[in-house]
Amino acid sequence: MTSRPSQTPRPLLQRPPLSGLSVAPLDAALGAALQAKADGLAKPLASLGRLEALAVRIGQIQGRLDPQMDQVRAYVFAGDHGFANAGASAYPASVTAAMAATFLAGKASVNALARSAKVDVRVVDAGIDAVLAPHPLLIEAKVRRGSRNAAEEPALTADEVNLALDRGAALAAEAAAEGMDGVIPGEMGIGNSTSAALLMHRLTEVSLTDCLGAGAGQDEAGMARKTALAERAAARTSAKDPFQVLCEFGGLEIAMMAGFVIGAAALRRVVIVDGFISSAAALVAVRLRPEILPYCIFAHTSAERGHRRLLEALGGEALLDLGMRLGEGSGAVLSVPILRSAAALIRETASLEDVLAGRL
Amino acid sequence: MTSRPSQTPRPLLQRPPLSGLSVAPLDAALGAALQAKADGLAKPLASLGRLEALAVRIGQIQGRLDPQMDQVRAYVFAGDHGFANAGASAYPASVTAAMAATFLAGKASVNALARSAKVDVRVVDAGIDAVLAPHPLLIEAKVRRGSRNAAEEPALTADEVNLALDRGAALAAEAAAEGMDGVIPGEMGIGNSTSAALLMHRLTEVSLTDCLGAGAGQDEAGMARKTALAERAAARTSAKDPFQVLCEFGGLEIAMMAGFVIGAAALRRVVIVDGFISSAAALVAVRLRPEILPYCIFAHTSAERGHRRLLEALGGEALLDLGMRLGEGSGAVLSVPILRSAAALIRETASLEDVLAGRL
Repeated sequence: MTSRPSQTPRPLLQRPPLSGLSVAPLDAALGAALQAKADGLAKPLASLGRLEALAVRIGQIQGRLDPQMDQVRAYVFAGDHGFANAGASAYPASVTAAMAATFLAGKASVNALARSAKVDVRVVDAGIDAVLAPHPLLIEAKVRRGSRNAAEEPALTADEVNLALDRGAALAAEAAAEGMDGVIPGEMGIGNSTSAALLMHRLTEVSLTDCLGAGAGQDEAGMARKTALAERAAARTSAKDPFQVLCEFGGLEIAMMAGFVIGAAALRRVVIVDGFISSAAALVAVRLRPEILPYCIFAHTSAERGHRRLLEALGGEALLDLGMRLGEGSGAVLSVPILRSAAALIRETASLEDVLAGRL
Repeated sequence: MTSRPSQTPRPLLQRPPLSGLSVAPLDAALGAALQAKADGLAKPLASLGRLEALAVRIGQIQGRLDPQMDQVRAYVFAGDHGFANAGASAYPASVTAAMAATFLAGKASVNALARSAKVDVRVVDAGIDAVLAPHPLLIEAKVRRGSRNAAEEPALTADEVNLALDRGAALAAEAAAEGMDGVIPGEMGIGNSTSAALLMHRLTEVSLTDCLGAGAGQDEAGMARKTALAERAAARTSAKDPFQVLCEFGGLEIAMMAGFVIGAAALRRVVIVDGFISSAAALVAVRLRPEILPYCIFAHTSAERGHRRLLEALGGEALLDLGMRLGEGSGAVLSVPILRSAAALIRETASLEDVLAGRL
């Protein structure tokens, strides 16, 4: 095996990334007021189960007694991975750009789901290894054309990661300014389940084997290749700091999603987390800024091998469990009507007091 | 304990109930064609998990390769139970009528959920023990003012049950004629979880104790009363035939829901089954007409004690598991956007072949 020249990441910045953003803790008194409102509705106590807790949390995040979830947008962050050309994925790296074009044409699964759920979709070129034609729904935020192969060298430099984090936070600010109540960090990136597995492995206590899944559909031989690559990457560095881990294992779309999550929490937007990759980005965000965790709602448990344990590490219980493992933000988009319903419930249901007094 | 005069049900009719309705088996060849379509979409094979099976089933039920789920209506069947005045429920029987008025005013939980999910709501007076004022959304189908107390005598006569089944089937026909792609049998009836538990117990192998739950919220003393009533009812008769069991234990809204389910299946409409009571009605329908089972989609697993085992008895795996136990059709309404999304996926996602060939 030939050793390629490695670009050493610059030393970490003195201040943590996105340190200009402040994230407020949820208001416990407002939470109690929302719970009292839920308890007083015309229904048996607690009979709406997790919908009630969801309504309370959305209200707390938004700082209001009448939570709203009408406006939701999914940003599909796309990036390539040096891993992919070394055989990490069942698909060639060119599929990342092909799928980005499919998103822009409105013909991917996430588009069909998003139209059905009335969710906006934007595509973010975080680091696709191709040049995409301009499109009204495409946000050009490319940091570089793909990450380096993390099995051989750090996937990203500190500057690249900082740029990705900043651009992600800026996109969250744009979404907030445009009136979004909730945002979805979705993703597409051939090879990114290998990055996500490495991030999870290094930021939790879970073994690499338990973090590695079939991704887009590796067979046995493919899993052996993917595992070998991941093991080489893990062996190459002992980094544990979340920022440094992001530099080591990438990728650009994951770093940008982490910045996006932190930016959305700072602006009190509900972050609807999708599957394995999206949760790995949320994990990085939480390790960088623990106070963002309550702003995350975990939409579904993915069928990708590591996801259940990743959710456990995040202390989150997901809403749906439908055996999905597509990414793109698909599971998060699917959950949006449930979040809307939870918000509608606490806003619109009569109180038991009014029903019993005949005030309808 | 005084013995009250009991009205003996008339002998069963020669022909089974609703025998004029014929229910077609699902088309296996169409199922294979739908599965092939799902497999060919631009996504990793099977990566949308249960959404794909759902899309296939909806297409098979409707007999089309482009399944539709835009138009959905919930019928909230309301009826009173002789049990209730004897202490079966945590609430007085008058709450049935009060909640029916709340549904009509659009202020119950199911209304908030239905507005959010764009689902129509109708209220059906199957047997409320009160006279309701006319209302555009109220369907007057009252068979009698409440069922008899099944702890003491058969809850309903054969004629009453037949009338309820027929009216339920007629409502399904109305829904189909008005363009509904899917229908929801919802319910409200103080005391009806006791009837549902008895129906489940007698039509499955599950012990009465395992069928009895807290319903709308019985405390320990309430559960003791409820259990004693149910045990008396169960001891009073050894009926096993589904029609006869319905006569013995009631109630009117459950019988009407069972007819509604059979009528909807006969017209190839998707039946979205809610929680414990709704599933008990589906169980009765399946025991009367086993061929209707594949037309039922089980929306959620209720927190009501018996529901998990009831779903097992029906061989159905529910879509959602959110700890809800409200009834009214609430869980089924909540699941509608997921069914719509499944249908949209298979209709609107590009094929992998087209994406790889750049045909977008």
